[in-house]
Formats: sequence, structure tokens, C-alpha cells
Amino acid sequence: MRDTTTSGVITLLTDFGTADGYVAAMKGVILSRNPRAVLVDVTHEVGPQDVRGAAFVLHTVHRYFPPRTVHLVVVDPGVGTERAGLILDTGQALYVGPDNGLFSFLLAEERERSGQEVGLREIAHISIVEVPPHWRAVLIAESSFWLPEPSNTFHGRDIFAPVAAHLSLGEPVERFGPRLDTLRAFDVPVARKLPDGGVEGAVLHVDRFGNLITSIRGDELPRGSFTTEVAGRHIEGISRTYADGSGLIVLVGSSGYLEVALSGGSAASATGLGVGSPVRVIPVPRHRRPA
Amino acid sequence: MRDTTTSGVITLLTDFGTADGYVAAMKGVILSRNPRAVLVDVTHEVGPQDVRGAAFVLHTVHRYFPPRTVHLVVVDPGVGTERAGLILDTGQALYVGPDNGLFSFLLAEERERSGQEVGLREIAHISIVEVPPHWRAVLIAESSFWLPEPSNTFHGRDIFAPVAAHLSLGEPVERFGPRLDTLRAFDVPVARKLPDGGVEGAVLHVDRFGNLITSIRGDELPRGSFTTEVAGRHIEGISRTYADGSGLIVLVGSSGYLEVALSGGSAASATGLGVGSPVRVIPVPRHRRPA
Amino acid sequence: MRDTTTSGVITLLTDFGTADGYVAAMKGVILSRNPRAVLVDVTHEVGPQDVRGAAFVLHTVHRYFPPRTVHLVVVDPGVGTERAGLILDTGQALYVGPDNGLFSFLLAEERERSGQEVGLREIAHISIVEVPPHWRAVLIAESSFWLPEPSNTFHGRDIFAPVAAHLSLGEPVERFGPRLDTLRAFDVPVARKLPDGGVEGAVLHVDRFGNLITSIRGDELPRGSFTTEVAGRHIEGISRTYADGSGLIVLVGSSGYLEVALSGGSAASATGLGVGSPVRVIPVPRHRRPA
Repeated sequence: MRDTTTSGVITLLTDFGTADGYVAAMKGVILSRNPRAVLVDVTHEVGPQDVRGAAFVLHTVHRYFPPRTVHLVVVDPGVGTERAGLILDTGQALYVGPDNGLFSFLLAEERERSGQEVGLREIAHISIVEVPPHWRAVLIAESSFWLPEPSNTFHGRDIFAPVAAHLSLGEPVERFGPRLDTLRAFDVPVARKLPDGGVEGAVLHVDRFGNLITSIRGDELPRGSFTTEVAGRHIEGISRTYADGSGLIVLVGSSGYLEVALSGGSAASATGLGVGSPVRVIPVPRHRRPA
Repeated sequence: MRDTTTSGVITLLTDFGTADGYVAAMKGVILSRNPRAVLVDVTHEVGPQDVRGAAFVLHTVHRYFPPRTVHLVVVDPGVGTERAGLILDTGQALYVGPDNGLFSFLLAEERERSGQEVGLREIAHISIVEVPPHWRAVLIAESSFWLPEPSNTFHGRDIFAPVAAHLSLGEPVERFGPRLDTLRAFDVPVARKLPDGGVEGAVLHVDRFGNLITSIRGDELPRGSFTTEVAGRHIEGISRTYADGSGLIVLVGSSGYLEVALSGGSAASATGLGVGSPVRVIPVPRHRRPA
Repeated sequence: MRDTTTSGVITLLTDFGTADGYVAAMKGVILSRNPRAVLVDVTHEVGPQDVRGAAFVLHTVHRYFPPRTVHLVVVDPGVGTERAGLILDTGQALYVGPDNGLFSFLLAEERERSGQEVGLREIAHISIVEVPPHWRAVLIAESSFWLPEPSNTFHGRDIFAPVAAHLSLGEPVERFGPRLDTLRAFDVPVARKLPDGGVEGAVLHVDRFGNLITSIRGDELPRGSFTTEVAGRHIEGISRTYADGSGLIVLVGSSGYLEVALSGGSAASATGLGVGSPVRVIPVPRHRRPA
């Protein structure tokens, strides 16, 4: 019966921007079905059709919401085509959106937790992967939950929003369509340990402050001193806070990843780096601190 | 007694942006009067003083909200001058804002529903029109609902927000001031059928993706094949989705209007077109498909 | 027992922008602790690390919220360093954030109300000032209210958000840590009366419309005619509304301050002025109107 208890919170994450009425129309649809829904915007400023950017932002926020929150994620370049819409129930939370890779970081988290390898592969590659055990995936197929006569261009409003509203009311996921065994995911950039004790990774995200968030997690860093190499520059050591050090610094940021930051400025502007740029951590062999 | 039942939802649509505290001050005023109000932002990024842009966005969202929602719309270049503030009760919903044309698209919708002609006239023209039968319009005059000593420059906070809050609590519209028989409206750009079976219209709105939303509705298109002419370019046929076709395409978008879109890009940037640009649909005489 | 009654409203004011998930993570943390909290965004578009800009926006909105609202304010260049986090209880409302000057305008308001001098001093100067009588300030020290293992880089999510949530649930402020006798404040730019009956001040804030909001309050203006001097230009007289007059005008805006505005445009763009620019009001000696 886990389906029938939800937090009542519905988050919204889209690339719709906030200048048009698209997000508001979705909210109207939700409140028309569940007047007590608590709506929280994650962001609507993901780059147009940037599925990977949306997947990353979802990855950084979902764990902070109450259990059984419904996360509505609509970045949907293939709207109206054959691409499926799905509901994902991880036990911890419910996700609604197109089956186009939006949930790739969630899958990578789950694989890691269950001890599976997550390989560093071509970021452009999307593949069909198995739904993890203990998760349930459902194809959104039962049109009685949708708006009548859904458009071909705005499933966020006509299909996903009403589905999210009914989920938040406790409707069991099985009612929305048949179970799915697979879903689509892209390969999440991760860090790779190097033979010299170093780590190589890539920039995952550039935030509002111009911080370059890399795929190297804090617990993957060398135990001794190290240098970080980005765009031909070498940054010595690691800072504890943004106010610690001057010029380009690296630190472990609030999502647990190594970040390249610029004291009082934007590291992205200063370095010209962006999503996908390579980053390498090089251990300093001499004068090693004790672990 | 329809006044006394409202959805509890209040939407906010302004040109205030979100960098200052203007919208927050309005929300504080509302919650001070109705702590249970459910506040939904439509947008605050309408161009400064762009009454027509706001009117269009309102047109695309209002029908998705619960019945008896209160829509607070404040784009108010004439704040503090003789222009009136009004409440509009269409039966379906309640609207609060300055009497400067913000409700023109609502009026055009109502005229169409009741079978009246809506002519394509000069968009710059604002006229005084009769309040439709079954609607009620009320002049905002009763200052006991307002903040004490309202400013001359921010009626959104000092007059319209508290009025919306009291409406959402079920206060009957008549209490706020005398009935109005007329309100101000601009002529909504519509489509015109041409003798050759074609249709001509204009761009109504450019959305976040650079899609050019025209005044030609899907149900006004020729039944056979057609070509769309914009800015000297000819776009053959019609797509079903944004992912269908390449280069410039046309499709019927989520508000029911013909849109010009660019696969994977911005049609507005590619064509240089904007609000008011002419668009023409030309039937293809040969090889006509059966209706 | 005033602690145990709150409005249930929590406002959020940050420099986090809305493109990342930072604000959403804070909201998730709050709703996980107080599912009934009513969340209102003040703004998240304060310039990165612009403590003074945030302090000004807070000043313009706080009074419009219900009594005992919790205002969560996180512009925190020193996050993770020795700078303290604090709760301020003014009786009227509760404030949570870093002790870096964010509450300077609140202090200036309180000093004026109690008849103390507020001097025009160097805006760059931050000093340690006494907590006003009847206010309570508490150091955020009791970690049982925080997220476990708080990061060094995002106290907004890990410390301030959960503290705000528990405050909104009525937890007494004393539980969060020891009382503080002092807090940090910068000198708020105010207006200075000149021997000739004029007033000099500075631009405090530039709003979305390009209006230049000065530190000269409406009740400090000369009683007779006057000219306003900004950037070598002279603006005669005072307008009542933005629609009143043409070119550059001055008027008393919605926060009670003298503003320089441009009819149908941006005064900031037209004059090149910004925060800190000097403004001077010069009385016109002849043809004085009767007071």
C-alpha cells in the first residue's frame, strides 16, 4: 500500500522558462485535481531541451524532499513522438516524465548503492537499461487520468501534470498503465582512478556562480596532497570554503563533488570551461601528509 | 451566492520581474488577509508595461485553473492616474487589475462563444466596450479593503492584492464598488479568411523557445494542403510535433494556434519576426487531399 | 510565549538564482520538517554575494508579511568560515541568516523608531553594534536542529533552512543557542539635510524598471519647490505617478523613498547611475508655494 501514502508535495522541473504561461498551466491542472497539493519549483531554467542538465539538477535535490514526494520532470524534445511517458517508483519517491534519460543520475545512484559498476562512457550514448530491482516503472497509458484530447506538443500540461496530481492523491501506480522492465538512460560521467593514484573526470554542471561542478566525488580524491589540472592550469591543494584561498580554488561542494571555483568571481568565465570539459587530479608524490 | 465560493487559488501575473521585492510584498499582503490562500505565479516577466503580452499569457492559462480562481493581473503603466481598477466576474473565474485592456483576450473568447464577430483591427486601438451579459464588472472604489494610505505608484500591493485576498475569502464583488457597464479593450488580432481559401493573421506571441505563436487557430486552417508564408519564406505542409520535420516548420501548438517553429532552434531568431509580424496560409490547389 | 505562535509563513531571500537546485533543496529540507509551512520567495536574484542588495530588498518587504513570519535570508560569502549564523527575533518577526550585515536596514528602522541618530557614513564599513532592547539575537549553535554532517559550502540548506523550519513550528529561539548581545551591521546610507534647506543622499537600489531608488525619504523633502540633481542633470519639481511628466522625473516611490524614473524607459540606463551614486535635492528659493 505504499502507493497510497504520499507527502502531498509535487516538485516541478522543466525547461519552460518562466516568461510564458506554460508552468502556470501545469500548476492549474494539478490544483484542479488536488487542491491540497504543495507545489515546489525546482527550476524551469534548464537549457531548452537539455535533458542531461535537468537530470543533474534532479540528482542534487531529490533526497532533500519528504519521502513519497512526486517529482514532475518535463524536458521533452520528443513530445508527441513515439517516446514513452513513464512513472518511476523508487520506494523513496515517485517520478513522472518522458522516458528520455531524465532519470539517468537516479539510476547511477541506485547502481552504486547496490555495488554495481558505473562506467565512464560516451555521454552522448543513450541505452535501454533494466529497471532496478525494488523499483517499479509504469508506462503512462491510461488516458482517463489525462486531460481530454491532449495536444501533441504539451504533454507536460495535458498528460504528466494530471498524472502527477492523481499520484499525489494516492492513486496506485499500476492504475496508470502496464509495468515496464526497461527504461532509457544515458551514461553518467563518473570519475576514473588512474594508475598513478590520480583521478580523471569531467565537468558535470556549471552553477549560477560559475562554479564548475565535476564528476569527481570527494570520497574519490587522493588521501595526500594533490594538484587539479583544468584547461592547462594547475590548482594546488584543496580549500574548505569559497572564502578560503584566492584565484582559482578547488573544494568539495554541497553535492559532494569536487568543484573548481574562483574567489569572488566565476570560474567558468575565467577558464572558458563548460559541461564535459576534462578535469584531472594529480597526486603530489613528495611531502605526502599522513592519511 | 456564487461569490462566496472560491477555489482559494490566487494567481499573480505582473511585469515586476523577480529581482526586487515587489511580488513578495503583494504575497505578504495577501497572506496577511487570507493565510490559506494558495498563490500561483503565472509570470512576472512580461515586458515592462506590455499590457498586450500580459493579456495573451492570461488567455493561455486561465482555463486550466480551478473554477472561481482569482486572477490578479497587474501591468499598470497608468498607476496613480485616472484609470480605473476593476473586478471582473465571468462566472467561471474572478479577475482583478487595472482597466487598461488586460482582459481583451477574455472578451474576445466570450464574444466568439456567443457568436459575435471579432474583427481584425488596428492592434494599437483601445476602445470602450460593453461588459458581456452574464459577466459582472465592478469598479474598485471601497477603500476599506485597501491598505491604509495607498501609494500612487504601487496599487498592486496597496489596492489590488488586498482586494484579491478578500475576494478569495468569498467577499461578494458588489461590496468593492459600483457596477460598471463598460470596460476598456484593445482589438485582439485574429485570423481573416481570404477569397482564395487562405488565411491571414499575425504573430501574437514569441515564447521562450522562440516559437512564433500566430493568431490563426488550428480550426481555421484550409482542409487541404497548404503553404505558410512568413517573412518571404514558404513553409510547406504542417507538422504534428516539434520533432517532426527539419528547418522551419509549422504546427498547431498547445494553445490551439498555428505556430512557426525551428527544429532544435529559435524560429524568432532565424526569421527576425516578432509580435505583429504578418503570417499567411496559402492553400495548394493541386493534388488536394480528400477532406 | 510569543515564540510558540508563528504565522507559518517562511520567506526565502538568497543570491542563489533559480537555474540550479539550491533553492529547491532548501524548500525540501523545510517541508521535510514542517509540511504545513507556507513558502514565499522574496527573490533569489540578488547579485552574487551582494549582502547590501539583499538587506535593502528585505527592508522593503518584511512589514507586509503576517506577524511572526520567519524570514530566511542567505547571502553568505563567508559560508564555512568563522562568521556566525544567527536568529533575530524583533517581536514582530523572526530572521535567520549569517551575521554579515543582512539585517542592517532593520536595525536602522529600529533606531529611527526609537529616536536614535542614524548617521551617513562610509557604506563599506561594517561594525559590531548592540542588539536593540526588546529584540533577541541568538547564535545558531545547537546542531541537533541541523542536517547531519552539514557541508562547509551550503549552510542555507544544511543549517539555516532546518532552523527556519523548526522556528516556524514554534520552537523557542533560546533552544537554538546562546544569546548574543551584538551583531554586525553596515552603515545604511541615509539622507543628510543641508544648510540651504536641501537634502543629499545616494542611490540605494536600482529596480527592474531602471528606477533609481534613493536614500532620501519623502518626508525629508523640502516643503516648497525643488530641483533634483543627479549626474549633472537637473530635474524640476516632483511627479505624483510614473505616467506624470516626460523624460527624467522624480517621485516618491512605493517604499517611501525619492526615486528618479524615466517615463517609458529606464532611468538607470539613461543616466548611467547605479547604487551609491550621489543625489541632491535643491530648494528653489523664489516663487515658493505655500506649505
